[in-house]
Amino acid sequence: MNRVYNFSAGPAVLPEEVLKEAAGDMLDYKGSGMSVMEMSHRSQVFQDIIDEAEADFRELLSVPDNYKVLFLQGGASQQFAAVPMNLMKNKVADYIITGNWAKKAYEEAVKYGDAKPVASSADDNFSYIPDCSDLPIRENADYVYICENNTIYGTKFHTLPDTKGKNLVSDVSSCFMSEPVDVSKYAVLYGGVQKNIGPAGLVISVIRDDLITEDVLPGTPTMLSWKTQADKGSLYNTPNCWAIYVCGLVFKWLKKNGGLEAARERNEKKAALLYDFLDNNSLFKGTVRRADRSLMNVPFITGDKELDVEFVKEAAANGLVNLKGHRSVGGMRASIYNAMPYEGVEKLVGFMKKFAVEH
Amino acid sequence: MNRVYNFSAGPAVLPEEVLKEAAGDMLDYKGSGMSVMEMSHRSQVFQDIIDEAEADFRELLSVPDNYKVLFLQGGASQQFAAVPMNLMKNKVADYIITGNWAKKAYEEAVKYGDAKPVASSADDNFSYIPDCSDLPIRENADYVYICENNTIYGTKFHTLPDTKGKNLVSDVSSCFMSEPVDVSKYAVLYGGVQKNIGPAGLVISVIRDDLITEDVLPGTPTMLSWKTQADKGSLYNTPNCWAIYVCGLVFKWLKKNGGLEAARERNEKKAALLYDFLDNNSLFKGTVRRADRSLMNVPFITGDKELDVEFVKEAAANGLVNLKGHRSVGGMRASIYNAMPYEGVEKLVGFMKKFAVEH
Repeated sequence: MNRVYNFSAGPAVLPEEVLKEAAGDMLDYKGSGMSVMEMSHRSQVFQDIIDEAEADFRELLSVPDNYKVLFLQGGASQQFAAVPMNLMKNKVADYIITGNWAKKAYEEAVKYGDAKPVASSADDNFSYIPDCSDLPIRENADYVYICENNTIYGTKFHTLPDTKGKNLVSDVSSCFMSEPVDVSKYAVLYGGVQKNIGPAGLVISVIRDDLITEDVLPGTPTMLSWKTQADKGSLYNTPNCWAIYVCGLVFKWLKKNGGLEAARERNEKKAALLYDFLDNNSLFKGTVRRADRSLMNVPFITGDKELDVEFVKEAAANGLVNLKGHRSVGGMRASIYNAMPYEGVEKLVGFMKKFAVEH
Repeated sequence: MNRVYNFSAGPAVLPEEVLKEAAGDMLDYKGSGMSVMEMSHRSQVFQDIIDEAEADFRELLSVPDNYKVLFLQGGASQQFAAVPMNLMKNKVADYIITGNWAKKAYEEAVKYGDAKPVASSADDNFSYIPDCSDLPIRENADYVYICENNTIYGTKFHTLPDTKGKNLVSDVSSCFMSEPVDVSKYAVLYGGVQKNIGPAGLVISVIRDDLITEDVLPGTPTMLSWKTQADKGSLYNTPNCWAIYVCGLVFKWLKKNGGLEAARERNEKKAALLYDFLDNNSLFKGTVRRADRSLMNVPFITGDKELDVEFVKEAAANGLVNLKGHRSVGGMRASIYNAMPYEGVEKLVGFMKKFAVEH
């Protein structure tokens, strides 16, 4: 066995001890005589798994009691429809466009009502977060929508927008549980788990309970109604049991390692190592305005496309894989989520130094 | 480790050698240096996994070239909305109601158009399949809908309904790949994989390609449009990668063991053992009309509710678990999917004999 350092933007690296535990439990989960994959989702043994996952998630994120936690399918892309279907009472919503995913969410919302971009950083290829301190939020806006960490572009909202009292909906897929957050500032906070938390095929949504109502748009599929899912504790139909289980293991791992405060410290330390190098070398440079840099996704370029290709290839040969940047930015991108060890970033920076000397 | 015989209706038993392979690959899938859960869905190594899963699925089911195979999220329940959203051009659809799942599919379709039950077996608690040789199918029906194997009630369509030339849509969740089928008789055939094929959180849909169009109902979420998914080879967004991988392992296992013809033989042999006992003992009896019995789900009762409870309890103590019947039928239910070995059914029948003598 020869593990690599995997800088994939998602699905992404998971803690090695979580993988070992999942492998060890595979044929007989805690004396049940079966794999988690073989369990009825109506069984007590699975109910304990989902209950414990939710309890640990709530504890880690300090989720207030008046928020529901839902385990859903279909990825963030499906929530792009679910958000307007569940929240557009006035059929008015304001979107802040900071990248592809915010744009897709906006385009989906246009199907259902008067969705409008109130800010954008498209003018400079989404390399920064626009000033959101005094936006033209509409009086009757049902919500204001952001994508909080932009996986492709490597930006993050370090200050939440002033929504002028309107409900804030945030897609946190690529910064989920990477640091503590004040959940009470959000109306809805949701993310695909396949970056920081677990395997693909699961979204965790944290929704203030007054927003979970039967009053959804006509034609909303039952499965996209948050009330359907909340009333049944995410077990309206068979959920992605395996992903819930693996997320639960990751939550235990986070708790054992000091919770989200400690996760933030580790993530800041990793990011600092990489950004400091980017800011102090002559070959590579970051593509994002410094104040808006993500702790999770770090895009960088050499300025020479052929050299970028060479770098990605040589890095892979050295066990540093999935460093190719998204086509929207080009160059390279290192995603350094919770489960990326410090040593992985050290190895990367070491390799970059060596590459810079050689080129 | 002490494996049980797991008669769960789903999620359900998986082949032990598949579980062992998944455990063995957990930290390093085929020299990639990572788990399948950690792989980018855009990577070549994952593309190979999904391509091979689709190729093996097509081979096993002899899927004609003019059918697309889609790997989707949200379970059959989500397809209850996707079916009308994608197919209701005339907003007319005829439903055959043979149990809870067909009824739920019908109720969802009512949201989107003129859905109508054209046959039902509700009059006798869904213990039989109605005569579908001459139904009042409407001239302008977009499709005729069935749930082919009724997990809760233990019935199966052994002859497909005469749809009078209309498109047949079939939910095959609980008989998926349990025997060969003639795909060309269906317009759409789909099922959740968590019974016969793999872990929960994945639906495989087989759709005749002329039915995959942009002409969906207004307000259809992008994720529920079959065209979105077909155009991107099920990779419009991150799919349930792990479930696709495990299904792929199950397909290899099926191929190695003689394909679906051999699966049918094994399933018939298992079912015969159990049904023969039910028909020839004085304590237990089946609840389904003989001609309509499922090969997969076998409900039975003693006629004494307390004795049923006692049976389920004692069976579990003997390593025969998840035999409690669904509340709609009561008593017991043995789900004997592809991965249930013959020895499991032998053990069950042996235990039933012993129990009958003792009570």
